[in-house]
Amino acid sequence: MSGEPELAVVLHALGDPVRLWLVRVLAAQGESTCSPDGLDVPRSTLTNHWRILREAGLTETRQEGKHRVMTLRRAAVEARHPGLLAVVLAEPAGPGAAPG
Amino acid sequence: MSGEPELAVVLHALGDPVRLWLVRVLAAQGESTCSPDGLDVPRSTLTNHWRILREAGLTETRQEGKHRVMTLRRAAVEARHPGLLAVVLAEPAGPGAAPG
Repeated sequence: MSGEPELAVVLHALGDPVRLWLVRVLAAQGESTCSPDGLDVPRSTLTNHWRILREAGLTETRQEGKHRVMTLRRAAVEARHPGLLAVVLAEPAGPGAAPG
Repeated sequence: MSGEPELAVVLHALGDPVRLWLVRVLAAQGESTCSPDGLDVPRSTLTNHWRILREAGLTETRQEGKHRVMTLRRAAVEARHPGLLAVVLAEPAGPGAAPG
């Protein structure tokens, strides 16, 4: 094993409407700031969602000046859990699809 | 849409080591009683896990005399979320793989 989180941890991270939407936004746009357009969720809540995604190995974060930029670890996730992202991304993340 | 639960609900149901193990047991054995062999988890906890799996549309329950028997809704889940079960079942549920 590669030290990547277990499948249950990854599924738990994806098992929330906001986090699922964030992953779809990343897949569609390539990257995202902490607070993507179209989502009406408190910043502290979003910070927590991003942390859960990162700890599950789904995303990574880099600093650009004052901003954090999130990207999807697409190749790593596909290597560890083949087919999972295809299931998650089968429904696109349009702005109208934003939860809450 | 068919009235089946949303993907986030299904992923949340699968995002727990015990529930993931239960689904793998069902897939391997065809069906299960409430308390499958090899799992050291309190019965009340198991009842709650089975409820979450059932409400997510992953399993169904039938009564056989005094016992409840659980089965996996394999065709329904595959129709709604193609490929998801393949990801979940990629790791088999051997007795030594039981969580807790």
